[in-house]
Amino acid sequence: MSEQDLGRVLSVQSHVSFGYVGGKAAVFPLQVLGFDVDVVNTVNFSNHSGYGRFGGTRANAADLRSLFTAMEENGFLRPSRLLTGYIPGAEALTAVAELAKRLHEQNPELIYLLDPVIGDSGKMYVAPDVVPIYRSLLPWATVITPNWFEVEILTHTKITDRASLQKALETLHETHSVPNVVISSIPLKPWLFDLLPQNIRPHDTVKDVEASGFLLCIASSRAQNLPSPSVVHAGCVPLIPGYFSGVGDLFSAFTLAHFNPPTLPSSSASSVNGRIENTTGLAEAVSLALTKTHAILQRTHTHSLSLPPDERLGTDDERDAEDPERRIRRMRGRELRLIQSQDIIRGEGLVEMRTLQEWEDFWVRPDLAIP
Amino acid sequence: MSEQDLGRVLSVQSHVSFGYVGGKAAVFPLQVLGFDVDVVNTVNFSNHSGYGRFGGTRANAADLRSLFTAMEENGFLRPSRLLTGYIPGAEALTAVAELAKRLHEQNPELIYLLDPVIGDSGKMYVAPDVVPIYRSLLPWATVITPNWFEVEILTHTKITDRASLQKALETLHETHSVPNVVISSIPLKPWLFDLLPQNIRPHDTVKDVEASGFLLCIASSRAQNLPSPSVVHAGCVPLIPGYFSGVGDLFSAFTLAHFNPPTLPSSSASSVNGRIENTTGLAEAVSLALTKTHAILQRTHTHSLSLPPDERLGTDDERDAEDPERRIRRMRGRELRLIQSQDIIRGEGLVEMRTLQEWEDFWVRPDLAIP
Repeated sequence: MSEQDLGRVLSVQSHVSFGYVGGKAAVFPLQVLGFDVDVVNTVNFSNHSGYGRFGGTRANAADLRSLFTAMEENGFLRPSRLLTGYIPGAEALTAVAELAKRLHEQNPELIYLLDPVIGDSGKMYVAPDVVPIYRSLLPWATVITPNWFEVEILTHTKITDRASLQKALETLHETHSVPNVVISSIPLKPWLFDLLPQNIRPHDTVKDVEASGFLLCIASSRAQNLPSPSVVHAGCVPLIPGYFSGVGDLFSAFTLAHFNPPTLPSSSASSVNGRIENTTGLAEAVSLALTKTHAILQRTHTHSLSLPPDERLGTDDERDAEDPERRIRRMRGRELRLIQSQDIIRGEGLVEMRTLQEWEDFWVRPDLAIP
Repeated sequence: MSEQDLGRVLSVQSHVSFGYVGGKAAVFPLQVLGFDVDVVNTVNFSNHSGYGRFGGTRANAADLRSLFTAMEENGFLRPSRLLTGYIPGAEALTAVAELAKRLHEQNPELIYLLDPVIGDSGKMYVAPDVVPIYRSLLPWATVITPNWFEVEILTHTKITDRASLQKALETLHETHSVPNVVISSIPLKPWLFDLLPQNIRPHDTVKDVEASGFLLCIASSRAQNLPSPSVVHAGCVPLIPGYFSGVGDLFSAFTLAHFNPPTLPSSSASSVNGRIENTTGLAEAVSLALTKTHAILQRTHTHSLSLPPDERLGTDDERDAEDPERRIRRMRGRELRLIQSQDIIRGEGLVEMRTLQEWEDFWVRPDLAIP
């Protein structure tokens, strides 16, 4: 273990006693990778709400401000990186938004990864009044990691084709001034498959892409002095069947950990003769994040298959509704195998790299393209 | 990283956003060592109270019961090990005591490490009504890790000589039925030095022991079918100057992690032909805990010496009182270098083992001893 300091991450997200979502999914990997992490818990729950039954408390805006104020007065609010995730309700999110702005003013080099946790697959987790606050926060973020549904909500854009995908990304980069947008785990529907250039399509010849199941990950970095709004990279990973929780939180933590933009005078980028070495741009960081997250998910899946039959249950909302205990057993068997994946977190034993490739013709205007 | 499961630890103690005390000092090492840790936060503070200024909230008894009840209903209250530390106030401690008893009834093989956090060096951190609750909890504990002062309070015994030391340990083992007692960091005053057998005294010839500074660590395991109340092991470590926070919490976590009594049918002790292998008794576990804790403290001390002069300040309560910012800078420079010590946590690069030796004549009655 090197004695070198990688700097401090301030992580503001949910805490669960049992299992691995929110801070429990994000903090440990960051620590293993060498970051001192300052941990602010936005909720203290027994387990994630997907189990159906949970206990515990939420931090309100006053609780969070009390923490932030004491940290500031003591000189402890000097992170080099900020990570925010699930924040319960508009008032608490407002307190976090104030913090993010203050930290950015103090340190314009702050790397802020904002995961705008709003919902998934057409269902909102949060109250509607949270959405405009997230929108107002976007200009302060260095990287955002919304899912497909969150992109649609944030940009008021239903994404169904190349033009609407371009419009959504353009809105985030231009209207909301976000330099780096990462959209992970987009179901690779046929229309999206057809858009992909050859270097990004899944290697296998796939007849029915949707049935085989792939997820697309897009990383879009605002280009300087170029006619297109951004440089886009993308990659596909095979879909692992079933529902796993905390995957997005883990992916965001890895993305933040591995993102070392060249402009950052960070101690993690060693300066040799005035040149900054060891930098990683967005595509490289997301490739590492995707590779590690997928490997941990694969290990979790393999483990869940080794469980006794009554803990190894298929995702089936109808049967869960009849028997809530079934849902609990099913979800417990799919908690991330994070503690058992420290080799993957450190980057050892990665058997297959998921390297994102440039999507060169992403910004081609469909109305001008050769049919 | 092995795929083998070491089992679950339920950790109930304080959380601080910044720095490493309570759960922030204990959970990460347990995780690095391979334990899934269920984390219940008894407080959510910005930093430890020793900084003089802090913000945040305490969990009350109802908050804790809400967490424990939901975990129990979901079937998540099945740890193989329980670790409890700082708990704010009698009501919250009562909720934790109920939990400990319930878990012990469910699983008599539960390893419960109870750190009865009461105070240090003659000063109490908690209200006096907490003490009898800790006393009532003692019979449920497998290992307790009080400091010198806490032993005195729990046993109503001022420890000043061999007879009072014997009486205190006997009270814990016999009256309170604690099988394993560990007292770490006892200042090695001359009377205590004189009691020590040759194999436990510090290696160097020391004229003025107190001035040179050593700490004694005692591990006392109740003996079965023997005339003496316990088997006592002890060892000395050099005192590292200055005040460090979270050291006891870290030490307790290591002690719990490395304690694998032979009676435990744990998956961490691999069973070969019906015999349990790979067990560690109390003395071995405490030796590892002492070795690793001391090595991390040494690394923290070395780091603090490398800081700029205004962050590298001697412990001086009078000057701190005049200038509260001085205290904050001083303490911040001495936060445990836990993230930078993963090699030590894993047991790599340990240059000097601090192996406890048996204190064979510990239970000799002073009035019968040859003068």
